[in-house]
Amino acid sequence: MKATFMYGAGDVRVESAPDPRIHRQTDAVVRVVRSCVCGSDLHPYHSMPASGRGHTMGHEFIGVVEEVGSEVATVRAGDFVIAPFAWSDGTCEFCREGLQTSCLHGGFWNSAEADGCQAEAVRVPQADGTLVKVPGTVDPGLYPSLLTLSDVLGTGHHAALKAGVNRDTTVTVIGDGAVGLLAVLSAKRLGAERIILMGRHTDRTDLGREFGATDVVAERGEEGIARVRELTGGRGTHAVIEAVGHMPAYLQAVGAVRPGGVISRVGVPQYEEAPVGFGSLFGGNITLTGGPAPARAYIEELLPDVLDGTIEPGRVFDRTIGLDEIAAGYAAMDAREALKVMVTP
Amino acid sequence: MKATFMYGAGDVRVESAPDPRIHRQTDAVVRVVRSCVCGSDLHPYHSMPASGRGHTMGHEFIGVVEEVGSEVATVRAGDFVIAPFAWSDGTCEFCREGLQTSCLHGGFWNSAEADGCQAEAVRVPQADGTLVKVPGTVDPGLYPSLLTLSDVLGTGHHAALKAGVNRDTTVTVIGDGAVGLLAVLSAKRLGAERIILMGRHTDRTDLGREFGATDVVAERGEEGIARVRELTGGRGTHAVIEAVGHMPAYLQAVGAVRPGGVISRVGVPQYEEAPVGFGSLFGGNITLTGGPAPARAYIEELLPDVLDGTIEPGRVFDRTIGLDEIAAGYAAMDAREALKVMVTP
Repeated sequence: MKATFMYGAGDVRVESAPDPRIHRQTDAVVRVVRSCVCGSDLHPYHSMPASGRGHTMGHEFIGVVEEVGSEVATVRAGDFVIAPFAWSDGTCEFCREGLQTSCLHGGFWNSAEADGCQAEAVRVPQADGTLVKVPGTVDPGLYPSLLTLSDVLGTGHHAALKAGVNRDTTVTVIGDGAVGLLAVLSAKRLGAERIILMGRHTDRTDLGREFGATDVVAERGEEGIARVRELTGGRGTHAVIEAVGHMPAYLQAVGAVRPGGVISRVGVPQYEEAPVGFGSLFGGNITLTGGPAPARAYIEELLPDVLDGTIEPGRVFDRTIGLDEIAAGYAAMDAREALKVMVTP
Repeated sequence: MKATFMYGAGDVRVESAPDPRIHRQTDAVVRVVRSCVCGSDLHPYHSMPASGRGHTMGHEFIGVVEEVGSEVATVRAGDFVIAPFAWSDGTCEFCREGLQTSCLHGGFWNSAEADGCQAEAVRVPQADGTLVKVPGTVDPGLYPSLLTLSDVLGTGHHAALKAGVNRDTTVTVIGDGAVGLLAVLSAKRLGAERIILMGRHTDRTDLGREFGATDVVAERGEEGIARVRELTGGRGTHAVIEAVGHMPAYLQAVGAVRPGGVISRVGVPQYEEAPVGFGSLFGGNITLTGGPAPARAYIEELLPDVLDGTIEPGRVFDRTIGLDEIAAGYAAMDAREALKVMVTP
């Protein structure tokens, strides 16, 4: 089969790879119907040291089950499935609590235990815990929205949920990437009536307005913070969702949050240390929360809204390419010519 | 009257000061019945630059109202009152939400607007919002426990509340000072059945056991973390209360918390930057919360348990001194010869 490999910053190649096979009887092999490029794939695209050995890529996909191990009970060949961006057994204490990203027997794609899904097919460990079957015949028009359940919709939902968003909370979302926009959609879905989106790409923030943003702040840094405060009577918002992962976004979150409020991070932090002392978080009783979204936990809850068209998260995909063109897809997202690129194997 | 002034690290003096008077019609003047020395008073005791001008001290007291301004409606001369460690109007949006430490018209003792209470009397701004009247005749045997409602009991309660403690959560408390011990008491009061207290002063951890600690870990740093993990099947605890404020305690909290868990800080951070990235908080979906406790918000809730003896938080006071001896009180707490020193003016 064909699969995507990254050999270093800016160096993405599609090459032949062995067809995936069942290793353990809890595995499934899934033929990929759609995968995509994630904003977080751009981090290694910027910084991965060059290597003679390629690293598999991709952690979001929908597909059709081709084969299952003898111990797999919940899906079978022919099922249309959604895979979250972490695989998990579904039975350990963390999975039972809905924190599948900390599964005791789970893991992440593109690790020693599982290859990536920017490929024609993929081996799925812990298939029973990981895969969610989509019932009935699946309308291809729904593929983009179903694909967001792998990661970006679940991540936006996680951000809003951990931020405690409800109808009484004001919300700031920092970042107009796919996760930021779907955090807007999720905050709206959870009832928020005031959602300030911080982003400076008009085509994206326009989509953000359609998803529910009531205000857009294009300014960044101190200016952006001042603007959010201006919009909120000087207070800041109850919830701030940080969907970028860089230090300036963190500092913007600290500046935009209301005393007693919550900063919910879902952008993978590209820093380890950050201000958390009296002047930043402690003095105002600010809560810092978030992390890798247990996307698996949210699929069943969000799926009906996707299937009946209540929400259309798939609108974040503004370009579709074939697997062979994936290097151009990375480049387009990196240059911000594309918001999110869907891949047809 | 006599009042306490700090002139620099280690330099605490009792001097004559003008008797407090009503400045605004929302003020009260309260004759102090008991005040005390706080662990947080030891921070300037260690680090305050020497100055020719003394800084007033003290932020915890109970007393009897001597005089009130014409706009004060809820207390009057003769009332026995508890004052929290921040004063607040009781009517602003933050006060109504129970975050009196962020009151729009409030503040802290020992600032430009209000002197400290390690004194014979004190002027209380925003008396209606700030003071809580204790009903009936007050038994002097209850003074120590009533005094903890000013700060350390409310702070321990805040820590446990923000940590989400309930009967299903395991808890680690870092620090065997008065706040740490009352965080143990508060966690127990909120239903926690497993409470690990990290501290190495046996007389204090013994009191911690009486307050509800089920395990005591005397080790610190990596060894202490390993011991907590050993006690929790390798997982760490759902809640970690950090009641110290120094970086090693923060790192211990990060090491002792379970994935998906909460670190609740009430020790005033003596640092501004700390690890919060993928390897510390983000990867495990750890929440960092806490801040200055809105002690005022909790007085009415906790008072009945104090009055009927259900809890005896006043046991943290292990020394009582006169105001004239307060320098020796600071020294005793600093040398850890005393856990918490009560002051009789």
